Amino acid sequence: MRDVTKDNITDVFMGYMGQNTDPRLKEVMGSLVRHLHNFAREVNLTHAEWNKGIAFLEQAGEISDAERHEFVLLSDVLGLSSLVDMLHNRPEGTSSSVLGPFHITGSPPLEVGGDMRQDFTTQVLLVEGVVKDPDGNPIPGATLDIWQTAPNGLYSSQDPDQDTYSFHGLQTVGADGRYAFTTVKPVEYTVPSDGPVGDILRACGRHPWRPSHLHFIAEAEGFRPLVTEVFPEDDPYLDQDTVFGVREDLVMRYEHMPAGSFPQTGYALSGQVPDAYLKVAFDLTLVPK
Amino acid sequence: MRDVTKDNITDVFMGYMGQNTDPRLKEVMGSLVRHLHNFAREVNLTHAEWNKGIAFLEQAGEISDAERHEFVLLSDVLGLSSLVDMLHNRPEGTSSSVLGPFHITGSPPLEVGGDMRQDFTTQVLLVEGVVKDPDGNPIPGATLDIWQTAPNGLYSSQDPDQDTYSFHGLQTVGADGRYAFTTVKPVEYTVPSDGPVGDILRACGRHPWRPSHLHFIAEAEGFRPLVTEVFPEDDPYLDQDTVFGVREDLVMRYEHMPAGSFPQTGYALSGQVPDAYLKVAFDLTLVPK
Repeated sequence: MRDVTKDNITDVFMGYMGQNTDPRLKEVMGSLVRHLHNFAREVNLTHAEWNKGIAFLEQAGEISDAERHEFVLLSDVLGLSSLVDMLHNRPEGTSSSVLGPFHITGSPPLEVGGDMRQDFTTQVLLVEGVVKDPDGNPIPGATLDIWQTAPNGLYSSQDPDQDTYSFHGLQTVGADGRYAFTTVKPVEYTVPSDGPVGDILRACGRHPWRPSHLHFIAEAEGFRPLVTEVFPEDDPYLDQDTVFGVREDLVMRYEHMPAGSFPQTGYALSGQVPDAYLKVAFDLTLVPK
Repeated sequence: MRDVTKDNITDVFMGYMGQNTDPRLKEVMGSLVRHLHNFAREVNLTHAEWNKGIAFLEQAGEISDAERHEFVLLSDVLGLSSLVDMLHNRPEGTSSSVLGPFHITGSPPLEVGGDMRQDFTTQVLLVEGVVKDPDGNPIPGATLDIWQTAPNGLYSSQDPDQDTYSFHGLQTVGADGRYAFTTVKPVEYTVPSDGPVGDILRACGRHPWRPSHLHFIAEAEGFRPLVTEVFPEDDPYLDQDTVFGVREDLVMRYEHMPAGSFPQTGYALSGQVPDAYLKVAFDLTLVPK
């Protein structure tokens, strides 16, 4: 079009699309570009601001590699990742929450009642619950992929002093749907803020902290996979998670259990926990496909 | 917020901004994120689509370097670059158009009436006009940074067989504001389509072609710099420029001038053009700062 104007450019863009373009692609690209154009018009975006945006994208590309996912982090801190999660959440199941960049595949099997603490000897946390369907029936054979920070606030992939699979485990539940493991309480930590996304956080007067959490991916034949997190209700960052991951049904009370009360049988640590310990009970409800 | 929902997440995002955040940054980020969230809600963006988007950004980052600016190209083919241009256009001056990725600094001086053809011997094109203010007064001392493709469709930076400054020149006009140079007709060419942006064009059923054009940056003390392009009215891609750069006032008639009519004096090529040649007259109107 030789008469492209600031008012018709979105229509011109749509008109450029081929007749055989996949209808969903057309819908997604059309909506994306309409919002992009409306944004530019709304704020009267200047060349200098456009340059800053381009420089930001180039810097994010530069810092990214197989381990560092700056564009995922960008999506996380802008709330897009959480929004996509929530759009596909089903109210009859447990809420999903962000996967985050620290999941790794191939976690070692962890028997029901097993221990994930490895070399760390801070206070024991016992986590247990049932994997069930929306009617409350247990889901035999469901698997839980579990991961969390060590007490030093680092995931194994961030910490040369930890084994690759430190605080990672894959648990398969039995006929009763019950899972259980001992670990230590995860701690709050910051998202990586030494790159361009960190610059955005600082410029917006935001901190990089996330409340502490346990990560789960629950899967079972015939059910939608669930990626979620569990947060302790007393975490100081619960109401200001920098990646917007907290949902009301994922906030749990971590009970303080008295010394001498750890179960005598059924757990890898039975007979080895004389002191007070923490306990959190958290059922996971999966939605059929 | 532990009650982040798909409906309130945009407000939560705004609430995270610090009290001392620069008001313009707050306005731009707020609008950008509101549009981003509205886009995701509007199309009910899936995790698979989100993954494709992240993978696209990572690939664009990977292919980018000091020479290859894939994010600029993305902005160009989505119409954002042209939209930003048009938002800051002033109706009393010549329309601006995209800078594109092929401008280089340090072009050699080109005297008024000088020749840019170098080793290429295709038909001569004579380009001339006046650099003037909105009242029609010439602007003495204005500079024109001029660049274009060679007849092979390549800019010098894309073509190892051309000198660095082949088809680049910097002309300073005299008291009459008049500029003039001889060159060859630029040719239509494709934007780089071997990367992720090319994948988008193909998926949307779009071609990568731009109509042929001459690039100008006109500058003068006390006036807003003008980045623009001039297109021939008979170019087959005029109505479908893949980067949306064509404006009505930038489309010019390239006149066919008969053999023997080339001016006998005043041009570097005077006395050397016995054949028919092309001529385009194009005045550039700059707007005071």
